Amino acid sequence: MAPVSSALEDLVAALPEGSVVTDPDIVASYRQDRAADPDAGTALAVVRPRRTEEVQTVLRWATAHGIAVVPRGAGTGLSGGATALDGAIMLSTERMRDITVDPATRTAVAQPGLLNAEVKAAVAEYGLWYPPDPSSFEICSIGGNIATNAGGLCCVKYGVTTDYVLGLQVVLADGTAVRLGGPRLKDVAGLSLTKLFVGSEGTLGVITEVTLRLLPPQHTPCTVVATFDSVQAAADAVVTITGRIRPSMLEFMDSAAINAVEDKLKMGLDRTAAAMMVAASDDRGPAGAEDAEFMAAVFTEAGATEVFSTSDPAEGEAFVVARRYAIPAVEAKGSLLLEDVGVPLPALAALVAGIEKIAAHHDLLISVIAHAGDGNTHPLIVFDPADADMARRADVAFGEIMDLAVSLGGTITGEHGVGRLKKPWLAGYLGPEAMELNRRIKTALDPAGILNPGAAI
Amino acid sequence: MAPVSSALEDLVAALPEGSVVTDPDIVASYRQDRAADPDAGTALAVVRPRRTEEVQTVLRWATAHGIAVVPRGAGTGLSGGATALDGAIMLSTERMRDITVDPATRTAVAQPGLLNAEVKAAVAEYGLWYPPDPSSFEICSIGGNIATNAGGLCCVKYGVTTDYVLGLQVVLADGTAVRLGGPRLKDVAGLSLTKLFVGSEGTLGVITEVTLRLLPPQHTPCTVVATFDSVQAAADAVVTITGRIRPSMLEFMDSAAINAVEDKLKMGLDRTAAAMMVAASDDRGPAGAEDAEFMAAVFTEAGATEVFSTSDPAEGEAFVVARRYAIPAVEAKGSLLLEDVGVPLPALAALVAGIEKIAAHHDLLISVIAHAGDGNTHPLIVFDPADADMARRADVAFGEIMDLAVSLGGTITGEHGVGRLKKPWLAGYLGPEAMELNRRIKTALDPAGILNPGAAI
Ligand SMILES: Cc1cc2nc3c(=O)[nH]c(=O)nc-3n(C[C@H](O)[C@H](O)[C@H](O)COP(=O)(O)OP(=O)(O)OC[C@H]3O[C@@H](n4cnc5c(N)ncnc54)[C@H](O)[C@@H]3O)c2cc1C
Ligand SMILES: Cc1cc2nc3c(=O)[nH]c(=O)nc-3n(C[C@H](O)[C@H](O)[C@H](O)COP(=O)(O)OP(=O)(O)OC[C@H]3O[C@@H](n4cnc5c(N)ncnc54)[C@H](O)[C@@H]3O)c2cc1C
Repeated sequence: MAPVSSALEDLVAALPEGSVVTDPDIVASYRQDRAADPDAGTALAVVRPRRTEEVQTVLRWATAHGIAVVPRGAGTGLSGGATALDGAIMLSTERMRDITVDPATRTAVAQPGLLNAEVKAAVAEYGLWYPPDPSSFEICSIGGNIATNAGGLCCVKYGVTTDYVLGLQVVLADGTAVRLGGPRLKDVAGLSLTKLFVGSEGTLGVITEVTLRLLPPQHTPCTVVATFDSVQAAADAVVTITGRIRPSMLEFMDSAAINAVEDKLKMGLDRTAAAMMVAASDDRGPAGAEDAEFMAAVFTEAGATEVFSTSDPAEGEAFVVARRYAIPAVEAKGSLLLEDVGVPLPALAALVAGIEKIAAHHDLLISVIAHAGDGNTHPLIVFDPADADMARRADVAFGEIMDLAVSLGGTITGEHGVGRLKKPWLAGYLGPEAMELNRRIKTALDPAGILNPGAAI
Repeated sequence: MAPVSSALEDLVAALPEGSVVTDPDIVASYRQDRAADPDAGTALAVVRPRRTEEVQTVLRWATAHGIAVVPRGAGTGLSGGATALDGAIMLSTERMRDITVDPATRTAVAQPGLLNAEVKAAVAEYGLWYPPDPSSFEICSIGGNIATNAGGLCCVKYGVTTDYVLGLQVVLADGTAVRLGGPRLKDVAGLSLTKLFVGSEGTLGVITEVTLRLLPPQHTPCTVVATFDSVQAAADAVVTITGRIRPSMLEFMDSAAINAVEDKLKMGLDRTAAAMMVAASDDRGPAGAEDAEFMAAVFTEAGATEVFSTSDPAEGEAFVVARRYAIPAVEAKGSLLLEDVGVPLPALAALVAGIEKIAAHHDLLISVIAHAGDGNTHPLIVFDPADADMARRADVAFGEIMDLAVSLGGTITGEHGVGRLKKPWLAGYLGPEAMELNRRIKTALDPAGILNPGAAI
C-alpha cells in the first residue's frame, strides 16, 4: 500500500491542484457506468485533467508505476467500458470542455468532455449541424461517442460517429501525444489511424481533442407513425423502404415498449399493437412529403393497422421523444440488461421472434426497441437484482440473445461496444484470426496493457 | 539465382496452372502504374490467383523465402504504389472477378479485381447504386479503390470509398486469411480493423473480398456551369455553397485545363476564363433545381462571367465528361506528374495562386483541376521526359507543391495515396509521433516487411 500512495503523491504534485480526487464517496460515484456492473472495482483515484499535457502526465506516471488507467467520459456507456478497476486511475474528461467552430471549413475542434448536445448547440450557433444523435445525446460526452463509435436515430441516413471524425489528438499508453488527421475533408497520407481510434473503447489511447466534420442544417422532417399487429409485417416494411429511399429515421418499438411509454407519457399509443414504427424523411421540399407518403403506403401494404403522417415538426418530435423515452420507461419496470445486437435487415423479424422465445423460456420480460433501418436492436431485459434466480436467468438470456444474433449473421454489438460485459463473447464472434489481429494491434500500442485492461480486447 | 528460381518452381507447383507468369514481356507490362516511375524494378514473376486460398499460398511461400509481394489491381494508381520491385512477386487480382448482389441487405460481395464500373453496373441491375466514382472508374479495380481509399466526383456529398466498405477478407503477410466486418450496417465488436485496411496501400494485407454498402439509385442531377475571370472568385463561391447546401459535385478547372479540353472536345468552352466550375445537385424534385438556382446565384454574386444551368441529364453529363477528360487532355501536351494535394476549403485560392508562382518560377505548365468541394486539387505538372532539365524542374515543383499545401494546413495526398512517389514527404507531413505509430502497426502486422516494401510507410 505504501508505495502506491507515495506514487499517488507524485501524481498529485505533478498536476494542478484539485486534479486528483481520492475522497472515497466521490471515487465511488465513478465506479459504474450505465451497465451498472455489480462486479465493478474500487479505483485508487479519479483524475480530472483539463489539458492534453496533463493527460500525458497521468499516462507517463501510470506507465512508470504499472497502474491501470480507465478513460471515462460521462459514464453513460452500456457495456461496462468505463467501469472502475481495483487500484486503477479513473481518468475523467469532464473538465475538458472547450470547443471552437470554424464555419469556413465546416469543422469544429472540441475537447472530449463536452456533451454531444453541447456540441450540437455550439455548432448550431453557426448554422451548422453535427448529425450523430445517440438517444443519450443530452448526457453522453463527445469523447465517449468517439471511443464507442456511437450510433443513433439518424444514422440510417447520416452514418455513425466515425463518419464525422476528421481528426483526433490521442495520448498513448506511454504518454506520447499524437495528432491524427485534421480539418481536411480528404486525407489519405499514412494508415487510417483516426478511424482505428474511433470505437477503440479506451484501449488504445485517450482521446484529448477531436476535429469534427459538420453539415449544413437538417431540413424539417416529415414523420410517419404506423402500428402493426405483427412484427414480421413491420420488419418487411423496413426492407422495402430502405431498398427504395433513404429515410432519416426508421425506428421500431415492440408491444412492451409501446405500453411502457404509454404508461408514462399517456399520449394515446395503441396498446394492442404488436409493433410500432416511427419513420421520417428530411429530404427537402415536396420530396420529404413524398417519402412520407411512400412509407405510409408501404406500411399500409405490409398490413399496418393504423398509419399517421405529419409534416408538423412538433407533432413528429413527440413520437421521436416517445421512442427515445422507451429505455427509461421500460426501466420503470425493473433493472435492465440492455442488449445491442444487430442483424442484416432481412433477419430482423426472426431476431425479434427468437427473443420472444428466449423471454418465454426464461420467464422474463424482454422488450425490443430497434434502430430498425440499420438492423440494430436493443432488447431490454427486465429483472430484479434482489431476485438472484431472476438475475441469473437475465444473464443467461443476455448471452442467448447474442448467440441468436450471431446465428442470424448478426453482431454482438451494433453501437454500445464490447466493454467488460460482452468481452466473453468477442472472441467467439470475431473468430481466432480477427481476435489475434485485434490483440496484435493492442500489444503494438499498449504493450504493458495499462489502458482500460479487461475492456473489449 | 538458383535458390530463387527453385523456390519459384515450388510456387508454380503449388498453384493452378497458368497462375505464375515469368514471360519477361508480360512481367514488364506490370512494371509501372500510371505514375510511370522510371525507377521501377523488375519483378521475379506475376502471379494471378483466382481465390483467397491461392493468395494465402503465395504469401506463405513469400514469407518462407523472404520474397517481397506487391499487390496490384488494375495499375491505374498515380503514386507508384503498384510499381514493380526487383525480385518481387507482382500479385495481380485481375482474375478475381466474382460479385454477388443482395438487394435485401443492400450489399454486394465482390472479389477485388472487378473494375469499379463493373461493380456499379452489377448493382445497378438490382436498382442499386455504388457511389464512389474516381474519374478512372472505368479502368480501376474495386480492390485498388479500397487499398487507396479512392475519392471521386460525388464524394463531396457521398463520401469516399471507406464509407461504403462494410467488410473485408484480407490475407496477411504470413498467409493468414482474416474476415473483418460483413453485411451488417452497424458493428462495433472489436477494433475498427476494416477501416484500418482501407487506404493501407497493400502494406498490411491483400484484400481478397469486399462487402460493399449500396444505396438506392441517385436522382437525376441538375448541373450548373460557371466561368470566372479569377480563381479567387470561384474559390469564394465554393466556401459559400458548401456552408449552405450539399451539392453532389463541385469541380474546378483552371484556364490551362479548360483550353486543353476545348482543344480536344471543341464544345465551346470559354478559352479566356481563368476558372470554370462544374457543380450539381441531385436532391430530388424541385429541391435539386432550387440548389442549382442557389449555386448559380452564388456564382453570379462571386463575379462569374457566365453561368449556365441545366436539368437535362445529357447536357449536364457533357460537362462532367469535360471535367473527367481534363487529365487525358492535358496529358496530350506532355508527360504528367500528377499531384493530389488537399487544403482546408478557405485555402483553395491561395493554393492555386501559389502553384501558379511555382510554375512560373520553374518555367513549367502546371494545370490545376480540383474536387473543389473537398479542397482536393490535382495540379498536373507537364514535362518532357526527354528533357532532363525540365524533368528535374518538374520533380522540384512536385515537392514544392506538397510543401505549399502543408504550409496552408493541407495534406500531401487527398486521394491517390503515398505509394513510392510521395514516401519522402510522409514523415515530414505526419510528424514523428504519427509516423512512429504507423510503423508500429506495420511491424505488428508484417514484421518481416514482405508486403509492398518501400510503399507508403
Ligand atoms: C438512455 C441511454 C440511451 C442510449 N442510447 C444510445 C444510442 O442511441 N446509441 C449509442 O451508440 N449509444 C447509446 N447509449 C450508450 C452511451 O450513451 C454511448 O455509448 C456513449 O457514446 C457513451 O459516452 P460517455 O461519454 O458516457 O462514455 P463513457 O460511458 O464514459 O465511456 C464509454 C467508453 O468510452 C471510453 N472513453 C470515454 N471517453 C474517452 C476518451 N476521451 N478517450 C478514450 N476513451 C474514452 C471509456 O473507457 C469506455 O470504454 C445510451 C445510453 C443510455 C443511458
Ligand atoms: C485518369 C485517371 C483518373 C483518376 N482519378 C482518380 C480520382 O478521381 N480519385 C481517385 O481516388 N483516384 C483516381 N485515380 C487514381 C487511381 O485510379 C486510384 O488510385 C485507384 O483506386 C487505383 O486502383 P487500381 O486498381 O488501379 O490499383 P493499383 O494502381 O493496381 O494499386 C494501387 C494501390 O493499391 C494496392 N492494391 C491494389 N489492389 C490491392 C488489393 N487487392 N489488396 C491490397 N492492396 C491492393 C497496390 O499495392 C497499390 O499500393 C485516377 C487515375 C487515372 C489514371
